[in-house]
Amino acid sequence: MVKMHVLSVLVENRAGTLSRVAGLFSRRGFNIDSLTVGETEGKDVSRMTIAVFGDDAVLEQIVKQLEKLVDVISIRRLDDESSIKREIMLIKVKSNEQNRSAIVEVAAIFRSRVIDISASTITIEATGSFGKLDGLLQLLRPYGILELARTGLVALERGPKVLSKDG
Amino acid sequence: MVKMHVLSVLVENRAGTLSRVAGLFSRRGFNIDSLTVGETEGKDVSRMTIAVFGDDAVLEQIVKQLEKLVDVISIRRLDDESSIKREIMLIKVKSNEQNRSAIVEVAAIFRSRVIDISASTITIEATGSFGKLDGLLQLLRPYGILELARTGLVALERGPKVLSKDG
Repeated sequence: MVKMHVLSVLVENRAGTLSRVAGLFSRRGFNIDSLTVGETEGKDVSRMTIAVFGDDAVLEQIVKQLEKLVDVISIRRLDDESSIKREIMLIKVKSNEQNRSAIVEVAAIFRSRVIDISASTITIEATGSFGKLDGLLQLLRPYGILELARTGLVALERGPKVLSKDG
Repeated sequence: MVKMHVLSVLVENRAGTLSRVAGLFSRRGFNIDSLTVGETEGKDVSRMTIAVFGDDAVLEQIVKQLEKLVDVISIRRLDDESSIKREIMLIKVKSNEQNRSAIVEVAAIFRSRVIDISASTITIEATGSFGKLDGLLQLLRPYGILELARTGLVALERGPKVLSKDG
């Protein structure tokens, strides 16, 4: 079945790891939808969160190949119910004196924050699930979106479970 | 001079782009500190935000090579004063009945949000600059940090400037 998959991957933090992991996906024709990589509490260990849209069976093969990479410490597939997913988005919108307060109001409704204003633009910071961020974008689109930067998903499992060296 | 650099890069959204971009850094021995990639308003265009710690002159060479990649549409180096940088962090902390309220209080002081509680853990969502997130981590570390997921930086220039096909 073709659908969105989210992988949480602990990797050794060294040059080339990202390129090798990304290469595994591209060689199978998988386009990575979003990828984030950041430090963890473990020295020299990074956590990658990878969101990919694709076929279940093919992903299964990729996961098996990832597990064989020396850079990869452990992998977990995260499902919707048992995990917390967040993303941050910065949006620069075209704006003038007439519509400025209307845009600020839309931002407030979505509990997002205005972080910069110029004579012709407003920049907004929004955090949340994919669906919430898309809803905000739809309301802002008529004003003219000049720039958009999304981090991609970051995710942890709910409850006390921990992704460690033991997987 | 060796320091932290932030690049904002517009790329074609296709299989292999991430691997080729990451490969350019690793071949020069540059370890990418954080990398985020997400969609933009342009169809088939993604924005990468890359934070690397390294030598000024070497980065200059890498930027020139990036510009030559067919996947790369435009690149801008973002400095501290004229850009807005944000990151999101999820932290799972060890917790029990005795220290739960103290941890919730720390979260509130940093304007971060408690998003999950179990009998033995608390999970917190925090947004901000690198410095703020590090401050929060230091206060939570004594309780025992079980899991940590950071998106890495996402950044836009302040004011009306826009990174487009014309760079």
